[in-house]
Amino acid sequence: MATETKSVSVITDDELLQHWQGHRRLTRRTIEAFPEDKLFQFSVGGMRPFAEMAFEFIHMAMPIVNGVSTGKWEKFAGEMPTTKADLLRLWDEQTAAIDKNFPQIPPHRFAEVDTAFGQWKNTGLGTILYAIDNEIHHRGQGYVYLRALAIEPPHFWERE
Amino acid sequence: MATETKSVSVITDDELLQHWQGHRRLTRRTIEAFPEDKLFQFSVGGMRPFAEMAFEFIHMAMPIVNGVSTGKWEKFAGEMPTTKADLLRLWDEQTAAIDKNFPQIPPHRFAEVDTAFGQWKNTGLGTILYAIDNEIHHRGQGYVYLRALAIEPPHFWERE
Repeated sequence: MATETKSVSVITDDELLQHWQGHRRLTRRTIEAFPEDKLFQFSVGGMRPFAEMAFEFIHMAMPIVNGVSTGKWEKFAGEMPTTKADLLRLWDEQTAAIDKNFPQIPPHRFAEVDTAFGQWKNTGLGTILYAIDNEIHHRGQGYVYLRALAIEPPHFWERE
Repeated sequence: MATETKSVSVITDDELLQHWQGHRRLTRRTIEAFPEDKLFQFSVGGMRPFAEMAFEFIHMAMPIVNGVSTGKWEKFAGEMPTTKADLLRLWDEQTAAIDKNFPQIPPHRFAEVDTAFGQWKNTGLGTILYAIDNEIHHRGQGYVYLRALAIEPPHFWERE
């Protein structure tokens, strides 16, 4: 480039939270789209059933929000739900917890490098983006399961 | 919350570009992981083969960078490649074009609302995030195809 350009802020912390919660609403609808038994048992190519993927998202979300916020990396303590209703209830509890705790992340922690869960070295932002991207990635796999079951998945572009 | 909090910038334009190109490197490795014939023909649940998904990413990436940059929303003009080598060649051309053109996006265009391709109303940032998320979503589906073919997909966490 002929001229030096200056970095431009394109996402703020509250926009990132809204973006994530939009994805989480879509993931909730994806969970809902599965018949109860298929949610916990069906898969393609020897992969995990979608309920296990959804539980992984729960394992990552609040523990990452808390870890970025406080520097303490504690695993999710709850047990894997065994019914769709319980999974959705847990999902909604986490949604409320994320809405409450995400805004408490100290500003400097987004850029600060930390070792998430003693294992994954990244900036706070990088770790949060990893959780969001991982959810999008595996939810896309859930869409294949639904298609293989001849069930129409929710619209990818709807996030409300 | 007891106190009013101020928005914090968590991603700059150049960080977003690097994040996207990291994902695009992973998508390139996903294309490479498919055997030639499976790339263009194999799918699960009546979905599209992965080559068509990858071509969709190409259809979105540079046209969106240009549209956000200039306000002109022009479709990708090239034809769908018919070999893996040609698809990878086109991919690499787009990588270079994105690296060149993304930094030219005028700062105000990230927050400005526009109607992408005369159809999708969103901020410039929202449209770019949609392209990235769409790529992650469908690439995740490509991972299911690979698993169904008993092929190990690339590591999701490797972005270099």
